[in-house]
Amino acid sequence: MPSDAKDWKAEAERLAAQVSALAADLAAATGGTKGKKANPVSPLAPKEGFPALPRIGGVSFAAGAAGVRYSGRTDVMLARLAPGTAIAGAFTRSSTRAACILDCETKLTDRSGRSSGAAIIVNSGNANAFTGAAGQEAVDAVTGSAAAALGLPVSRVFSSSTGVIGEPLRHERITAKLPELIAALDEGAIEAAARAIMTTDTFPKGASAEIAGEGGAIRIAGIAKGSGMIAPDMATMLVYIFTDAAISPELLQTMVARQVDATFNAITVDSDTSTSDALVVAATGASAAAPVEDAQGQVGRAFEAALHSVMLDLAQQVVRDGEGATKFVEIRVTGATDAANAHRIAMAIANSPLVKTAIAGEDANWGRIVMAIGKSGGVAERDRISIRFGDILVAEKGWRSPGYSEEETAAYMKRDTLVISVDLGLGEAARSVWTCDLTHRYIDINADYRS
Amino acid sequence: MPSDAKDWKAEAERLAAQVSALAADLAAATGGTKGKKANPVSPLAPKEGFPALPRIGGVSFAAGAAGVRYSGRTDVMLARLAPGTAIAGAFTRSSTRAACILDCETKLTDRSGRSSGAAIIVNSGNANAFTGAAGQEAVDAVTGSAAAALGLPVSRVFSSSTGVIGEPLRHERITAKLPELIAALDEGAIEAAARAIMTTDTFPKGASAEIAGEGGAIRIAGIAKGSGMIAPDMATMLVYIFTDAAISPELLQTMVARQVDATFNAITVDSDTSTSDALVVAATGASAAAPVEDAQGQVGRAFEAALHSVMLDLAQQVVRDGEGATKFVEIRVTGATDAANAHRIAMAIANSPLVKTAIAGEDANWGRIVMAIGKSGGVAERDRISIRFGDILVAEKGWRSPGYSEEETAAYMKRDTLVISVDLGLGEAARSVWTCDLTHRYIDINADYRS
Repeated sequence: MPSDAKDWKAEAERLAAQVSALAADLAAATGGTKGKKANPVSPLAPKEGFPALPRIGGVSFAAGAAGVRYSGRTDVMLARLAPGTAIAGAFTRSSTRAACILDCETKLTDRSGRSSGAAIIVNSGNANAFTGAAGQEAVDAVTGSAAAALGLPVSRVFSSSTGVIGEPLRHERITAKLPELIAALDEGAIEAAARAIMTTDTFPKGASAEIAGEGGAIRIAGIAKGSGMIAPDMATMLVYIFTDAAISPELLQTMVARQVDATFNAITVDSDTSTSDALVVAATGASAAAPVEDAQGQVGRAFEAALHSVMLDLAQQVVRDGEGATKFVEIRVTGATDAANAHRIAMAIANSPLVKTAIAGEDANWGRIVMAIGKSGGVAERDRISIRFGDILVAEKGWRSPGYSEEETAAYMKRDTLVISVDLGLGEAARSVWTCDLTHRYIDINADYRS
Repeated sequence: MPSDAKDWKAEAERLAAQVSALAADLAAATGGTKGKKANPVSPLAPKEGFPALPRIGGVSFAAGAAGVRYSGRTDVMLARLAPGTAIAGAFTRSSTRAACILDCETKLTDRSGRSSGAAIIVNSGNANAFTGAAGQEAVDAVTGSAAAALGLPVSRVFSSSTGVIGEPLRHERITAKLPELIAALDEGAIEAAARAIMTTDTFPKGASAEIAGEGGAIRIAGIAKGSGMIAPDMATMLVYIFTDAAISPELLQTMVARQVDATFNAITVDSDTSTSDALVVAATGASAAAPVEDAQGQVGRAFEAALHSVMLDLAQQVVRDGEGATKFVEIRVTGATDAANAHRIAMAIANSPLVKTAIAGEDANWGRIVMAIGKSGGVAERDRISIRFGDILVAEKGWRSPGYSEEETAAYMKRDTLVISVDLGLGEAARSVWTCDLTHRYIDINADYRS
């Protein structure tokens, strides 16, 4: 036992060093934070913050605090859409999907009320999922009240709910807020709308594009929420995209359906699919440009490309906000026999816990890529596969590349944005998907914390 | 700054308390251990240790240290099988499977050399996977040398390799060890064999069964390695089962193929499938009992049931040694339209990172079970699903059960062995699969350490 000041000082210094070492280990073990309270903005968030989005003629927004789950938190968003607005959408294919999803799917096929306009109402805090018959009653109450207050047929009011599941939705709190929301509707309030739909998101997500139509500009602006396709208590991915293009709902739906596979269906955080994922695209026709009528014409192609870029940007932002993510990763598969095989193999790699933990550990573990290709069920021949990390060829012809440099690859893996390319050497089809790494913070968010 | 002994003592005591607190946090964050060096035995390991296995007439074992990757580590196992031994097997369906797997598959269909006996040779430390043409050359060298030394046709020597991938196998180190291994062959050395094939396993795995045949007892003894279907650098699941039954290779293969779906194909640690999984079953015919010839007869049914029990026991031990596992979980799906749908839904639940992290957090998060059913692609109707944790009914008819008790369920979740039952309410088909939780230690093993 130390007996004088000098000995106690040495003991204290030894312990101080131990404290530093343990604190560093703990930070490493928990992804730099302890518990969820900190909820820091994702390190992969866009550096420039929420983008400046163009106003879309014919769309106005309002956000408010209805107290759906917590009081004083902005948790409800209303978007009003001008008469003539065309609506398209895509929804989760989950067999346990929520009542609002079933309701939206039905309403999307009924285009009779288009001339009167439309509305979208979204709440966070409660997903109204797996709530039996009460689920549809809540949807009817919210969309019915909004329709009455806005003078719309109920078939033109689309709702989404996100948050805890299995709890009855206090729909009367939302309907009580409607007069205040309607009074506050504002064409410039899209950022407030993006913030109102956040649950475990660490940043609001927005993207836009503009093209030259015939006789005027056509603008697209979209917002999204989602921390991947996953979150505690099954919070969901929700996306709302608005454009002033004049376009029929049929053509809009065709374009949305065509673009969704390579955008929102090409991202994954952890392979878990929500009960409530929803994408709604609304075209008001307020642009001075001539209607978009021919998908193969110059404007039609430009519009679909712009729509694709907004969808992809929002989809990638969801991955960048993936729970616990520290790396944003593109998995690019080329040389596949067809697009379905390219997608299947890319997704098997993107969803592999072994691949995702290796990326978290900055380990260029290409053997795990080989494993994931092998388990995917997609068409592949072991001895024709080549694998690149960035531009570095690590494996080819069924074995490690002769020129492989461990040091060069290790340096590449330290980046926060990675491209892993697999060439199957079999055909011409290609597909990219986007994912993130699997870190201690993912466990913290989903296991250590009862949400 | 403290200036005398008393102050420094107080400072040291303050720091010592901080060290304790940080060490506790770190232990909690990393699953109780720091890093892989400790490699503690899984908390789910059988309490009684390695079981006493019966000797199987006609099978002898030897284990040795060939220095495949590390010197001084037992890394090679040889099993010699008597003339007349029938061999059956099942192998990974990975499209990137290793050379030894392709070699075993070919040899299994060639039953011409049965009268001369057979041998199994296994090394750990190097998987000889994704090694191009050199992979088959190494398999030929090892099996060819063993065949020559044992006086067997090369078609009767089956090999497996497990460990790092993409590195050439130093097969000359294994063949140099053959004379010593052959000299050491011993009917009682099965535990040494079980230990020789371990890589990241934290305990050796064995199981046995005995039934009454016509005229004598029939014994089955098996060993396995695997820390789930996953491990760093794609170490693999390997299983070797021996019996003294007299049975044709055709009937043995039929029984093995029939039982593998409900045993080894019904476990998962993290959905990642190895390039090298192999199950080999060898029947020596050394039993005094009459041959097993009728799968539907009394002995045939008893033998197949005993084989099933050994396979299931070994499969469950692999899950119990799953990387980072602290909970052993049965997912039991009933009321399915058919077995394929029951299996698909059970596996979607068992592989869901959200379900597995909730279990790690002792959170009875039944909403995530609903989510996993929904995403599985299996046939399910939301409003007919009921879910139980143990005997506790938590959800029914599309909503939380009216009698649900949070406290009772929370107490159940603290157990280390859990049964989660889902009744789909659609048909009569049922399936169980086994999985473990997803913890910080899984990330430690696979991300924080370069293996």
